[in-house]
Amino acid sequence: MGLNIKDIAKLAGVSPATVSRVINGTGNVAEENKQRVLKVLEETGYKPNALARGLLMNKTNVIGVIVPDLSNINFAEFVKGIENEAKSNGLSVLLTTSENDTDSEISYFQLFKEKRVDGIIFSGTIFTERHREELEKADIPFIVFGQWFEHPKLTCVNVDNERAAYEATKYLISKGAKNLSMIMGPLWDRSAGYDRYSGFLKAIVEEGINPKDIVLEEGDFSIKSGYKAMKSILERKKIDGVLAANDFMALGAIKYLVDKGINIPDEVQVMGFDDNIISEIYNPSLSTIKIDFYEAGKMCVKAFIDTTDNKPIDKNILLPYQLIIRRSTK
Amino acid sequence: MGLNIKDIAKLAGVSPATVSRVINGTGNVAEENKQRVLKVLEETGYKPNALARGLLMNKTNVIGVIVPDLSNINFAEFVKGIENEAKSNGLSVLLTTSENDTDSEISYFQLFKEKRVDGIIFSGTIFTERHREELEKADIPFIVFGQWFEHPKLTCVNVDNERAAYEATKYLISKGAKNLSMIMGPLWDRSAGYDRYSGFLKAIVEEGINPKDIVLEEGDFSIKSGYKAMKSILERKKIDGVLAANDFMALGAIKYLVDKGINIPDEVQVMGFDDNIISEIYNPSLSTIKIDFYEAGKMCVKAFIDTTDNKPIDKNILLPYQLIIRRSTK
Repeated sequence: MGLNIKDIAKLAGVSPATVSRVINGTGNVAEENKQRVLKVLEETGYKPNALARGLLMNKTNVIGVIVPDLSNINFAEFVKGIENEAKSNGLSVLLTTSENDTDSEISYFQLFKEKRVDGIIFSGTIFTERHREELEKADIPFIVFGQWFEHPKLTCVNVDNERAAYEATKYLISKGAKNLSMIMGPLWDRSAGYDRYSGFLKAIVEEGINPKDIVLEEGDFSIKSGYKAMKSILERKKIDGVLAANDFMALGAIKYLVDKGINIPDEVQVMGFDDNIISEIYNPSLSTIKIDFYEAGKMCVKAFIDTTDNKPIDKNILLPYQLIIRRSTK
Repeated sequence: MGLNIKDIAKLAGVSPATVSRVINGTGNVAEENKQRVLKVLEETGYKPNALARGLLMNKTNVIGVIVPDLSNINFAEFVKGIENEAKSNGLSVLLTTSENDTDSEISYFQLFKEKRVDGIIFSGTIFTERHREELEKADIPFIVFGQWFEHPKLTCVNVDNERAAYEATKYLISKGAKNLSMIMGPLWDRSAGYDRYSGFLKAIVEEGINPKDIVLEEGDFSIKSGYKAMKSILERKKIDGVLAANDFMALGAIKYLVDKGINIPDEVQVMGFDDNIISEIYNPSLSTIKIDFYEAGKMCVKAFIDTTDNKPIDKNILLPYQLIIRRSTK
């Protein structure tokens, strides 16, 4: 329609700044004025794009991103997806790493607010009262990746980890694994820890196996912890299949099995989770649940843009996943 | 001595703001006043620490970091070193990725200036006239990692790549490799590309081998490009040793050799560069030049702090490296 924000302001009988505030959901607007603006927006079908809106409204066109740890190569892919989607929408990205430390996360929330970013995408593991307080105080959208945190201001982008782990376990069983084991992540990580364990358990129970007969080990998602966990499992029980809560731990497990001369997959089948770039070229290559972290990053930016554009979006966005069979399973 | 910045100002007969400007090297200070402040600083031995200085001088205590690509796991380690050293000095880190694109680098320089960071650590590959212009305009320290860019305002932290590649090649020769090949990085990358190639060449020539008899392939530092390069080398010549300009390309090369049933190291020895976390657990494990990227990150932050503290520092800081022998060489 060729309308701009000044036209909207004129039609609604308010200032352009008020229109900005209504569109962006920032600052205080008298309820009466807000309703008037919303009515005009609806009648005219006016949709400012992210970049144009930034220019008009003194937005910074910067998104703040918080990830726990970049030595997990998947986060690198995730960040690349964010960067590329942001770039093609005229947005810049400022990245920080929290090492999964709540103090760091909170202080980066504050730093980002100080630096006036337009929104925050974060990938944390725990959602505390302090996170909640920061959210309440903030007037920018928050997108969470990899967790289902519950808060009306949050949009979550995540995989159905329970279902994926269930399917991976079912696959191992279908290929003859009878004595299964799992290398879990920490259970306080509700998604990659708890939900993946929960899906494994569901498949086990469905097979009529008593969960008490299962040997479990917990790792911290590192290669080393997978190696140690595999060693400890084999010292306690003879197994023929293992699901690890991520690829790094699965690779550590494979490394231990290879060191011990145990044949993969004939004696022990190994299944990972995530699909990182090493899993395909490892020897033997690793079967896994592929999560497209690059796409996940793009989806987070899209969710951010849709939120700032006041488009109706799902608060819980499901990422697709895919079972990838390679040489570590039959 | 318990002195604070106001004491220094009083002793020098200038305002505290002038002292700040002299200490930080920011803003304009009349030469006479500058000399007076420097004299008092020298006489009193006054050394403000980074955090205290930030509080006193309205510094932001934020460092901006630009890295090319986080899917190179070494940069993740590098960033972790930066984060940890920054944290223990009361500094926050804002990170961006440039994909080695000059436009991105320049726009992040500008964004960081806008966001008032106290300094920039960047790891780029090319230093253009536009980088130079940004540097001239900026009044904050710039630390470069992984290149020897020449500019009076720059401090460079880097490895002697030529010498390291020379030693790696000499090692292969000492272990019986007679028909060597190299998978180079792009030569416009003066350090990881050109200098590593140059060290290889030096060792070859020293052995009396005609460089024309050497088969070279160029990759882009990715696993895939290493795989492709190895294939292309073997189609052209029978070799018994290969040096790759980084570990990812070396791992790609190993993958190709394993796929073809060629024995490593009996038929072909493979040597990488960098030592990333996969190289140790790969099967066979990869011999390489270990560069401590975590330490490199810490050194960059220290160089930043020393620069803002006006301590005399070397403009070209050499990182140590180490030859690590594993199963891919004899």
